Amino acid sequence: MSSIQLGVLLFPGFELLDVCGPLEVFGYAEGLSSTLVAAERGPVASTQGPALLADCALAAAPPFDWLMVPGGLGARAAVDDAALLAWLTERAAACDRVLSVCTGSALLARAGCLDGRRATTNKRSFGWATAQGPAVDWVAHARWVVDGPFFTSSGVSAGIDMALAVVADVRGEAAAAAIAERIEYEWHRDPTWDPFAALHGLVDRGDG
Amino acid sequence: MSSIQLGVLLFPGFELLDVCGPLEVFGYAEGLSSTLVAAERGPVASTQGPALLADCALAAAPPFDWLMVPGGLGARAAVDDAALLAWLTERAAACDRVLSVCTGSALLARAGCLDGRRATTNKRSFGWATAQGPAVDWVAHARWVVDGPFFTSSGVSAGIDMALAVVADVRGEAAAAAIAERIEYEWHRDPTWDPFAALHGLVDRGDG
Repeated sequence: MSSIQLGVLLFPGFELLDVCGPLEVFGYAEGLSSTLVAAERGPVASTQGPALLADCALAAAPPFDWLMVPGGLGARAAVDDAALLAWLTERAAACDRVLSVCTGSALLARAGCLDGRRATTNKRSFGWATAQGPAVDWVAHARWVVDGPFFTSSGVSAGIDMALAVVADVRGEAAAAAIAERIEYEWHRDPTWDPFAALHGLVDRGDG
Repeated sequence: MSSIQLGVLLFPGFELLDVCGPLEVFGYAEGLSSTLVAAERGPVASTQGPALLADCALAAAPPFDWLMVPGGLGARAAVDDAALLAWLTERAAACDRVLSVCTGSALLARAGCLDGRRATTNKRSFGWATAQGPAVDWVAHARWVVDGPFFTSSGVSAGIDMALAVVADVRGEAAAAAIAERIEYEWHRDPTWDPFAALHGLVDRGDG
């Protein structure tokens, strides 16, 4: 079984569950190791207050197989951080899988990674997030969207379903189901399950 | 609206989502502030790897209105930590609400807080957890259980549902529903919803 090195981007004001939901899942995936990366090594405060410890600085990050980008209120400032965007552009191109949760896809969009790709994002912030990537084929109604190496998910808790889908993709459906059972989580296996899009009046072209 | 100071216990090997699921919810609850507490101030590594930063040491913790205790593999060692148990006994008695996620209830049980109370815990570790409190009325089939000030929840992701129930209790059902919608989470509002108990062959006396 291949080992997988996952890099997780942190920035001030990241959304706590965007990061910790998927990392709970990946923590039980065989052969997968996570490294938290931020502008500087050390504590990074979330939107909700609690701080996670970044293992290394962007400039010192080792090569990764997978990359994960969270959203959160801090994404509003991060989309204007040229150094961060340049890092994302370079690293995303070198990864087998590039994952985003919530408005993390707005960061990937601003870094040019999603041009011409199908992707989704947070439904409450759909207008702002999609404006960050006019050349992206944004999907309003989706729990998560897969296009090539990109797994982009909807708001916050959607990251847990996306993470289980990625585990199913590389380690098999049974392995993902065992993790969901272990964390007593009712996994939404259908990427088109999305009761939240309609709450914000969002429909896709062709949805009616 | 009353302000609420929540103290959250961390110990080496806490379960990442046990802490971060509820803190995501509480981060959007009006007038609620969280402080992370551990044996020493500074980083505390989770079972899954990532470290959260403890804001203060147990001995230096301010008074709290609410207390939350997570589970995780580290709970197996923490139940034998006399200083930690003494702190829990004292602090739990002084709090309006005492919350646990997963095997966090085993710690509360060992601290004597749950004697004569109804409580639940992780279903995969039900045998070990319940053995920590022979005088507790353990409920096998429950997403979470309320008894007086105690809100004890089942494994890992059950903490999110419990946290929403606590918010509903003190801030109203609409406030909790708004948070669930914001984090795009399908809230299980029924505390008896528990498809995981049966997976481990667990039934309550009288369940049949």
